[in-house]
Amino acid sequence: MKKGREILKDNIEKTTIVLFSGELDKAIAAFIIANGAAAFDQEVTLFFTFWGLNALRKDEHVAVKKGFLENMFAKMMPRGANKLGLSKMNFGGMGPKMIKHVMKKHHALSLPELIELAKEQGVKLVACTMTMDLLGLQKEELMEGIEYAGVAAYLGDATDAKVNLFI
Amino acid sequence: MKKGREILKDNIEKTTIVLFSGELDKAIAAFIIANGAAAFDQEVTLFFTFWGLNALRKDEHVAVKKGFLENMFAKMMPRGANKLGLSKMNFGGMGPKMIKHVMKKHHALSLPELIELAKEQGVKLVACTMTMDLLGLQKEELMEGIEYAGVAAYLGDATDAKVNLFI
Amino acid sequence: MKKGREILKDNIEKTTIVLFSGELDKAIAAFIIANGAAAFDQEVTLFFTFWGLNALRKDEHVAVKKGFLENMFAKMMPRGANKLGLSKMNFGGMGPKMIKHVMKKHHALSLPELIELAKEQGVKLVACTMTMDLLGLQKEELMEGIEYAGVAAYLGDATDAKVNLFI
Repeated sequence: MKKGREILKDNIEKTTIVLFSGELDKAIAAFIIANGAAAFDQEVTLFFTFWGLNALRKDEHVAVKKGFLENMFAKMMPRGANKLGLSKMNFGGMGPKMIKHVMKKHHALSLPELIELAKEQGVKLVACTMTMDLLGLQKEELMEGIEYAGVAAYLGDATDAKVNLFI
Repeated sequence: MKKGREILKDNIEKTTIVLFSGELDKAIAAFIIANGAAAFDQEVTLFFTFWGLNALRKDEHVAVKKGFLENMFAKMMPRGANKLGLSKMNFGGMGPKMIKHVMKKHHALSLPELIELAKEQGVKLVACTMTMDLLGLQKEELMEGIEYAGVAAYLGDATDAKVNLFI
Repeated sequence: MKKGREILKDNIEKTTIVLFSGELDKAIAAFIIANGAAAFDQEVTLFFTFWGLNALRKDEHVAVKKGFLENMFAKMMPRGANKLGLSKMNFGGMGPKMIKHVMKKHHALSLPELIELAKEQGVKLVACTMTMDLLGLQKEELMEGIEYAGVAAYLGDATDAKVNLFI
């Protein structure tokens, strides 16, 4: 027989989002949905894989030993939430500036603020260890307060969830 | 106790699709899935956000007051379903022409026809008010027969749905 | 009354993935999730539509009669899993080479190996017949061991599934 606590936990709706894309607009969409679901007391997991990992990178350079290709990836990929481009109308960086400007004007939270809010609301931010290996990203280069897991853990969460998105 | 009508409504399968992307091919895919689900008597919600809103714009210019950046966005973004580009092989507009040509040849519905069919079948077309604000799009600029809502309404629909996609 | 076998089948979790995108990185992500779910004994369907169909093309040229536009599509689209580009940092083909190199270094399965594994694990690979028609792709041009169906069959699978992704 299930105990009260377990029954309660079973009743909590779950949402998972895979953030595969490394663009500012898609990351904003992912965090707005994640924060919205968390505000409805849902258990939310954001799983960062491939280019999506760039949203979790620290702004500053972190000195870690890397192979040649891993170093090239690290240099070419945007370092953190403030450096991401747009999926449309990027115009060499003008687009992201425009979007950030209108977001500020409309008092919308910026991506770094959306990430902070997600952490405060208990959204589970998970970095995909397999693609970290491939792209040569190390834990020291990613922000604090995140978890590390592989596709099996993601699938465990997703199978329990009502809403599963791939962004 | 639930009444007969409510029980019936609970048994209807629900599908939600977020259309984030502003490309012709992705919009076509979204509407084909939406129309297919509606043909199976499912309750379908298409939620248009970011560049996806462009599929709902009227073809003609609508005179509305806008700020400078909002005007730039409005000018740079495609005006309506007939103006969208492709996510692949766009070739400065040749790609969309080729796709439209082969669709006509194979008697496939065009995007404007798919949108009409969706409305006829009762697919709920919802424009995301938050991104309308950001991109400076006003109700007068979007087609008739759509609804307006935010992420909370989307999440309400998605939590009830079996199939939830982000396109 | 349901028989034992049917009850058992009802208890199997199902996962569906629409692969719309024709890029190497997205195809890899789709197959890693599909193979992971299959390893957990889930019933997995990968539905290939639009550019995603290119991952199923045979490497070699197949002589089939085609119209002019269909021939152009066939020539411009990548022929098979080994020819796909990246969604980010493609650099005219350098990016895919870098990714393949680091995948080999980390003993990760290549895309053709992931496809083979998926077949061995019984993942259902389904080519969307409607977009095959549009792009002029014929069965002879696609790999062996796949199925052919339309959006109705996809929706049937998706409505039964817990996890549904659009990639």
